[in-house]
Amino acid sequence: MNRIPILQMGQTLLVTIQVDMQDQMALALQDDLANKISTSGARGVLIDISALEIVDSFVGRMLASISGISRILDATTVVVGMQPAVAITLVELGLSLEGVRTALNVERGVELLALTRKENAFAR
Amino acid sequence: MNRIPILQMGQTLLVTIQVDMQDQMALALQDDLANKISTSGARGVLIDISALEIVDSFVGRMLASISGISRILDATTVVVGMQPAVAITLVELGLSLEGVRTALNVERGVELLALTRKENAFAR
Repeated sequence: MNRIPILQMGQTLLVTIQVDMQDQMALALQDDLANKISTSGARGVLIDISALEIVDSFVGRMLASISGISRILDATTVVVGMQPAVAITLVELGLSLEGVRTALNVERGVELLALTRKENAFAR
Repeated sequence: MNRIPILQMGQTLLVTIQVDMQDQMALALQDDLANKISTSGARGVLIDISALEIVDSFVGRMLASISGISRILDATTVVVGMQPAVAITLVELGLSLEGVRTALNVERGVELLALTRKENAFAR
C-alpha cells in the first residue's frame, strides 16, 4: 500500500484521507507527519476527511494522536470536511474527538490556522 | 469505491490522486471536476500525483483529458509532485503528456496558476 502524501503549502501541511485507514497506514502517516513538521517547520496541519463515510473509534484515536504529536511539535491540527452523517454517528457513539479542532472545509481550516497563529503571536 | 475528493481553496481546486485509477474512477473524477469547476467558478486545478509510482498511458490520457475539459471551462490544470522515476519512465515510453502543464510541487503549481491568471488578464 502506498503512503498517504503530505502536501506542503507555505507553513501548512495538507493531508487528504481517501481510504479506510489500517493500523500500519495510520502509523506510517503519524511518522511521516511528525518528520515533515520537523523538517519543514510547518505551523499547521489540515486533515481532510471528506471522503470518509465512516469514522470509527480507531480513526478517531488516530486523529487525536496526530493532533497531540503536532501540538508537541508546535503545529496546530485542524480536521476538515467531515460529512454531516459522520458527525451524527460520532456523537451517537459517544466519540467527541476531544482535543481535535475541526472546520467545515479547507478554506475555513486555513482561516482557523491563521487565527491561531495570530493568537499565539499575541500570547508570546 | 469512494470518489476522489476535490478540495477548494479560493479559486483553485486541489485533487490528490493516491490510488491506481480504474476506468470508472477516472470517469467519475472527470465528471466531478467538470461540475465543480462549473459551480465554483474555479480558475485553476492542481492535481497532485506524488503518491503514484506508475503513470501509464491510461493515467496519462486521463490527465490530458482533464486538462482539456478544464481549459474549455476556462480553468488551467497543473499536474504537480511527479516522482523523478515516473518522469523518466514516461519519456522512455514516449508519453510526453502533451497539453498538460506540470510543476515540481503544490507551491510551484500555485505560483504557476497565479502567473497564468495574470497573463490571461493582460491578454484581455
